Amino acid sequence: MSVRAGIVVTGTEVLTGRVQDLNGPWIADRLLELGVELAYVTQCGDRAADIEAELQFLAAQGVDLIITSGGLGPTADDLTVATVAHFAGRDLVLDTALEARIAEILRTLMAARGGEVDFEAVMAANRKQAMVPAGAQILDPVGTAPGVVVEPGPGRPAIVVLPGPPRELQPMWPRAVETAAVQQAIAGRTVYRQDTVRMFGLAESGLAETLREAESRIEGFAELEITTCLRRGELEIVTRYESTASDAYTALIDLLRDRYPAELFSEDGALIDDQVAALLAGRTFATAESCTAGLLAARIADRAGSSAYLAGGVVSYSNQAKVDLLGVDPALIADHGAVSEPVARAMAEGALARFGADTAVGITGIAGPGGGSAEKPVGTVCFGVALAGRPTLVRTVRLPGDRTDVRERSTTVAMHLLRGELLAQRSG
Amino acid sequence: MSVRAGIVVTGTEVLTGRVQDLNGPWIADRLLELGVELAYVTQCGDRAADIEAELQFLAAQGVDLIITSGGLGPTADDLTVATVAHFAGRDLVLDTALEARIAEILRTLMAARGGEVDFEAVMAANRKQAMVPAGAQILDPVGTAPGVVVEPGPGRPAIVVLPGPPRELQPMWPRAVETAAVQQAIAGRTVYRQDTVRMFGLAESGLAETLREAESRIEGFAELEITTCLRRGELEIVTRYESTASDAYTALIDLLRDRYPAELFSEDGALIDDQVAALLAGRTFATAESCTAGLLAARIADRAGSSAYLAGGVVSYSNQAKVDLLGVDPALIADHGAVSEPVARAMAEGALARFGADTAVGITGIAGPGGGSAEKPVGTVCFGVALAGRPTLVRTVRLPGDRTDVRERSTTVAMHLLRGELLAQRSG
Repeated sequence: MSVRAGIVVTGTEVLTGRVQDLNGPWIADRLLELGVELAYVTQCGDRAADIEAELQFLAAQGVDLIITSGGLGPTADDLTVATVAHFAGRDLVLDTALEARIAEILRTLMAARGGEVDFEAVMAANRKQAMVPAGAQILDPVGTAPGVVVEPGPGRPAIVVLPGPPRELQPMWPRAVETAAVQQAIAGRTVYRQDTVRMFGLAESGLAETLREAESRIEGFAELEITTCLRRGELEIVTRYESTASDAYTALIDLLRDRYPAELFSEDGALIDDQVAALLAGRTFATAESCTAGLLAARIADRAGSSAYLAGGVVSYSNQAKVDLLGVDPALIADHGAVSEPVARAMAEGALARFGADTAVGITGIAGPGGGSAEKPVGTVCFGVALAGRPTLVRTVRLPGDRTDVRERSTTVAMHLLRGELLAQRSG
Repeated sequence: MSVRAGIVVTGTEVLTGRVQDLNGPWIADRLLELGVELAYVTQCGDRAADIEAELQFLAAQGVDLIITSGGLGPTADDLTVATVAHFAGRDLVLDTALEARIAEILRTLMAARGGEVDFEAVMAANRKQAMVPAGAQILDPVGTAPGVVVEPGPGRPAIVVLPGPPRELQPMWPRAVETAAVQQAIAGRTVYRQDTVRMFGLAESGLAETLREAESRIEGFAELEITTCLRRGELEIVTRYESTASDAYTALIDLLRDRYPAELFSEDGALIDDQVAALLAGRTFATAESCTAGLLAARIADRAGSSAYLAGGVVSYSNQAKVDLLGVDPALIADHGAVSEPVARAMAEGALARFGADTAVGITGIAGPGGGSAEKPVGTVCFGVALAGRPTLVRTVRLPGDRTDVRERSTTVAMHLLRGELLAQRSG
């Protein structure tokens, strides 16, 4: 027997797409880890009738667990708790202990902010947040809004009511899962393993063919639930399976390893960013970017601790900047064009020298929409990877998509070329 | 009478949060422009029973229009058209003209790709895409998947079936809206105006107070449907109103202009990026970035045509790079620290000199999680804005949030400081 769940995301700003919903995907991941199948995600505005219609829909589909996010604030358009109480046939009652707890939080917050505030007025507005469905379990507030868990009835789902801000919702989730109500609702779940592998330089259709082959060759293949998706130009393959299907999974990985020795770069789910960060440890890295204009340096710096190996970079958007700041020979640009392998090499080597680095990447390309030619169409990008003590690697690729796609994918290609060179140097 | 719509987003990769749904928010915007109220967005996996349950739910709520996205491909898990046909009580029939059209598209695609392909096998797989609900209107494919429009029945919604890839869905939308079926479904809609203003440097709670004041002072204020949201550190205020409420909207803008002369930077919805791009025309711009590590240069370069004014930038992550590449005096760093106004000034002025630019921005800050101190906590960021012929502006701000937030918001602060200086120089 499998356990199914549904998510209700409330809030007009999410429904209208002006704020991206981060809670649905985050809860989806947690449910997957738990072994609970997510059947539906629904979004509606701050309207009681719409929220209750969605709760009824999910209950009618027989889900075992409903999670709501949002609508727990102190204002009039925060309706979720009252709506859930009505749906569950419970009275809304004032929890005086909770009221005291919220008062304490508000007092601390207001003291920290200072200034003259009418504490009683604020407390009156926030009293609403201490009204909960009779008999429901309270999840202590992370901000000022408490969460609520309503236990399942006969043939009725358990309901977990969480606040909208991800930084409040996320710490509450493990506490919600621990409640008796949720444990009862998910008792029948199947525990799955989930493994992720990543490939680069392979089309989704090529993989689909290999998976069809695996279907006929690997015993127990049908017990593997495989989903593939393209992310930043890489292929992510997530497989979910019960422990009885471990052999089939091992056989699948063996097959992929055999067919795609160059493309399969991660068997443990590690991102290329994780791998490059590990390989750069103890080194000094610099960038020289034209079309990506800082995206590669920013991607490297995205990780806390990157200052240990990132010296810096030059965004050499103009030809003059390539000459002045990276020491690229103007004759190279005149002879081969700014987007060429000789210039990419000179940029990488220039960054190596100027930053006193031992590792550098140069990128120069045509991101579009203008600037393309028959010989060098939009999407043509040249890379140089310079490692001290090795000949500089150069590569030219042609990337699909629009300006944003080309720039974004260029950083992914650069990460993979860099990884390859660092591994090659390490292995001798 | 208002017209309501619901969206059904299908696809396991979207439901599980592995791929972000871009279609829901995009369609939400289009519906808003049309004057159709979006009541629900629902997501489910590639399962016929789940898709049909969502269609039934939306129909039961009385929506006039349902839009589906995804599940139109050639493979077995692409089920949307068959499910919609079943839901609408229509047979699924082969449209031979459409089949010929798809064959033609495939032939062109395969010829472009070259290589040996079994055209008949591919065509057989794609024949499925020419199966449509009897009597439905076809929307010509943008990729290989056609869209479908099913006309409304008595008390039943019209259904628009669109493919999942945004680049296919988006061009099909206007054609779907033109169909008689959709026009019939949305005939009762109210046409609204929608205007956007943007503010910077103002908390949402401050604005809320001004809006409460507006409520009591402006006649017809209740007819303005105002939503506010924070985006990249800016406050976006979108107002939707019927033309009869134009005077109330004008009075609201007058009030905002009066109260927030410094904060209200856009009355026509233009982004700060649009304004800075216009102000940089004819100039030469360079960046010197530490904690943002290229994000500002990349943001400027995000716009096609930016090469006309963007010379480049230096990512001076290490102190040595600040000295070597930007000419920052090491004594300044020793005396004031790398995160200080004197260093931000020297970085901006160094970028001005090294790139031969007339406009430059320097950013140095503590993005966290480490590196903070009592005096300079995480989130402290110093800016320098250097314009040739003017004293360099320096500013220090303390930004909230995590490493990613601090870096992202720093670029927004830089854009606003830059805009201010460019406007000041122009008017002075």
